[in-house]
Amino acid sequence: VIGRRRLLIATAAGLAAPALRAQAPALVSPADLAHAAALRDRALADRHAWPLLESLCTEVGARPAGSPADARAVQWAVANATRLGLSNVRAEPLQARVWQRGATEVAIAAPHPQKLTALALGNSASTPPDGLTAEVAAYADFDTLRADTSDRARGRIVFIDQHTERTRDGRGYGFAGRARWNGPAEAARRGALGVVIRSIGTDRQRFAHTGAMNLQDGVPVLPAVALAPPDADVVARLAARAEPLRLFLRVVAHQGVDVTTHNVIAEVPGRGPRADEIVLIGAHLDSWDVGQGAADDGAGVAIVLAAAKHLLDAGRAPARTVRVVLFGNEENGFDGARAYGDRHGAVRHQLVGESDFGAGRVWRLRSRVAAEALPAIDALAGLLAPLGIEAAGNEGTPGPDAGVLMRRHRWPAIELTQDGTAYFDVHHTENDTLARIDAATLPQNVAAWATTAWVAAQADVAF
Amino acid sequence: VIGRRRLLIATAAGLAAPALRAQAPALVSPADLAHAAALRDRALADRHAWPLLESLCTEVGARPAGSPADARAVQWAVANATRLGLSNVRAEPLQARVWQRGATEVAIAAPHPQKLTALALGNSASTPPDGLTAEVAAYADFDTLRADTSDRARGRIVFIDQHTERTRDGRGYGFAGRARWNGPAEAARRGALGVVIRSIGTDRQRFAHTGAMNLQDGVPVLPAVALAPPDADVVARLAARAEPLRLFLRVVAHQGVDVTTHNVIAEVPGRGPRADEIVLIGAHLDSWDVGQGAADDGAGVAIVLAAAKHLLDAGRAPARTVRVVLFGNEENGFDGARAYGDRHGAVRHQLVGESDFGAGRVWRLRSRVAAEALPAIDALAGLLAPLGIEAAGNEGTPGPDAGVLMRRHRWPAIELTQDGTAYFDVHHTENDTLARIDAATLPQNVAAWATTAWVAAQADVAF
Repeated sequence: VIGRRRLLIATAAGLAAPALRAQAPALVSPADLAHAAALRDRALADRHAWPLLESLCTEVGARPAGSPADARAVQWAVANATRLGLSNVRAEPLQARVWQRGATEVAIAAPHPQKLTALALGNSASTPPDGLTAEVAAYADFDTLRADTSDRARGRIVFIDQHTERTRDGRGYGFAGRARWNGPAEAARRGALGVVIRSIGTDRQRFAHTGAMNLQDGVPVLPAVALAPPDADVVARLAARAEPLRLFLRVVAHQGVDVTTHNVIAEVPGRGPRADEIVLIGAHLDSWDVGQGAADDGAGVAIVLAAAKHLLDAGRAPARTVRVVLFGNEENGFDGARAYGDRHGAVRHQLVGESDFGAGRVWRLRSRVAAEALPAIDALAGLLAPLGIEAAGNEGTPGPDAGVLMRRHRWPAIELTQDGTAYFDVHHTENDTLARIDAATLPQNVAAWATTAWVAAQADVAF
Repeated sequence: VIGRRRLLIATAAGLAAPALRAQAPALVSPADLAHAAALRDRALADRHAWPLLESLCTEVGARPAGSPADARAVQWAVANATRLGLSNVRAEPLQARVWQRGATEVAIAAPHPQKLTALALGNSASTPPDGLTAEVAAYADFDTLRADTSDRARGRIVFIDQHTERTRDGRGYGFAGRARWNGPAEAARRGALGVVIRSIGTDRQRFAHTGAMNLQDGVPVLPAVALAPPDADVVARLAARAEPLRLFLRVVAHQGVDVTTHNVIAEVPGRGPRADEIVLIGAHLDSWDVGQGAADDGAGVAIVLAAAKHLLDAGRAPARTVRVVLFGNEENGFDGARAYGDRHGAVRHQLVGESDFGAGRVWRLRSRVAAEALPAIDALAGLLAPLGIEAAGNEGTPGPDAGVLMRRHRWPAIELTQDGTAYFDVHHTENDTLARIDAATLPQNVAAWATTAWVAAQADVAF
């Protein structure tokens, strides 16, 4: 939480440090800089993002791609973007092939029967209808499994007791996440019958964290589940004993279900010769099938919609078109990003960015733009510094959908890194609800995105 | 958490403050006081309670009375009390008539469909097999419902949005709990079809808190559920709008199931003429059918067993017999307490007490003893002061089972009040697991109970 008072002090400090901004005048005009600063400060008093997020969590909740709730989320987004006064609001249909969860049951079968709290991983195979019971081969972490050249996993259920380190930038998740992404395939290569991982998450609550596992060519797909942390503790304690430990696993899952979903688009239209160039600020509209999709990614949806609203309310049309894109099916395959690229790949994109890391405050700006555009990024950095945001180079990676587009189309990109310290407490769990969102940090996000979009839209340089 | 260093300082301070202890010599001998102090200090380095609790959560988990897990908990308790070296270890069978949970489904039916996280309340009726859908009559709290003389609830599902205040001593629960205990009957009297309450709990996690509702003569029993806090938020927000709100409710429950369970008893036998008098330190072995029963009441089970172990290891037989009683079926009707009273009511009980408020540190001592025994309580208070425990009069109420016995048999009682600030975050939820227990506060509890039991066993006065 960044207090109002601290921000005002930071603003004064920012204005007194002209070093970064001195390089910029050639690329961002003084009038545009002044407009950006005013926009930023008004957005810092944002009152749009919270009601949008509250509305999405209340009226829709969980919205896995292709579900009835997803369709209602699309309607919700179109209605709300329209209500906010944004232009060219539309839902662009796209096809996706998704994984769908059925029943999941996990229990200790022996020596001490106990039901465990678990969620199947996305892409998990089903077990036989009556489930399977097998002895456990326990591994302390993913690297231990990967290093195992023995026959220990064969015919067993592999348990990976990977812990997730709490970090601000998500490094802990990136490291531990390998157990979810690649653990099942590593187990399958060793002849395992199923996989059980400690949830990739930083909390101690009894929620399992779902999320997709990777499919690898030629490797069988196993039934794979994540255990809630307290249940992983139970398995770890029993696995450490001399007695053999047997788990029961029943997973019902549906692979490759063809569904229709949508990207929702809404714009603040540009005016002038560059109006057909796009500054894309995105988020994803779908969520996992658990929780309310509040942090992932209702917050991002609310932030970029509110940012666009502030651009609109500031009364000056941007030179380039600022486009909000709410991607469909991020969680289950990035189909929205790919469909957007297929449809709009020929249009010149000045910048793509995405808010998809919860509602924590933005603490870092990283770009991925041409060298000649860097003075404009410096100007942006000067504008964001009063928000407590530090510039950190030109090796940025935007959110997942924007990342797909950046890589596929070589579009310039921006990363506004949010504080993810608490994000993996609720990520991909039933506990991802509005009740866990800090309303106080949303406006700073809105201000950062509005400012970023404006500078990108006005800069006298192709990013 | 009370640190070791602070306790040592407190001990020194306690020894330097002889005011309370000056009254005591007539009732507790100097040798017994010295033994108590040594016992207390050794118990403060306790290493028994945590492994006991860990073992119970690992090897048994949830253990509702009469379930197979409950039977295994009884075996566990007998085996562990025996292993600790306690005497006369036995399981005394008793009959109970319990409520059992079947499936529960709650959802917003209109205007914005959404599945809600809920648990049926103990004693809830079933809905029709296909569930029921009805408009909601929302009440801000229990008192608002009770004051309603209109026909508003008739034919509707009553929603009670009672919030629970976080307090150290559980007052917040006592006040809010009325919505669960009596809300369903108040709704039934007004012709409601079902009842949905905000969970009686202090957390913001997506867990519903179950617990029993009271049955009242001549009042129909309704289907009644508790919503997780974030889901109660959704209902409250929609109920505040002009559009009618409809809920779907499906509850399957089994009333009045006859089961057998047990009280488990283990003793540190007294020696001498008062050996047949009993100092009872209790906890309850059963739990709700959700969670691991860690805070409620695995912690209490571990604490009183560990306290008895320290009495044993201190090497002096007590004058009276110290009896650990692990009651059966506290949660679903106090059958264990009544069965104990039926069987042992004629035996002289010097004192009854119970640890059943989680694992928080003890901060208060309250007795309920004869006036002539108060100097012995003062002596006890002097011994407990170094543990950070304050004496607070003779109007104590021991735990639930001990309270039943105190009232029925007029047995003297002791209350060692634990800090319950965090207790109602996990109380009666799936989240009541070992992962939420603070291992650091267990030894202080063990020390308090060991000291209390010894002083009660030795005092030269009938409490």
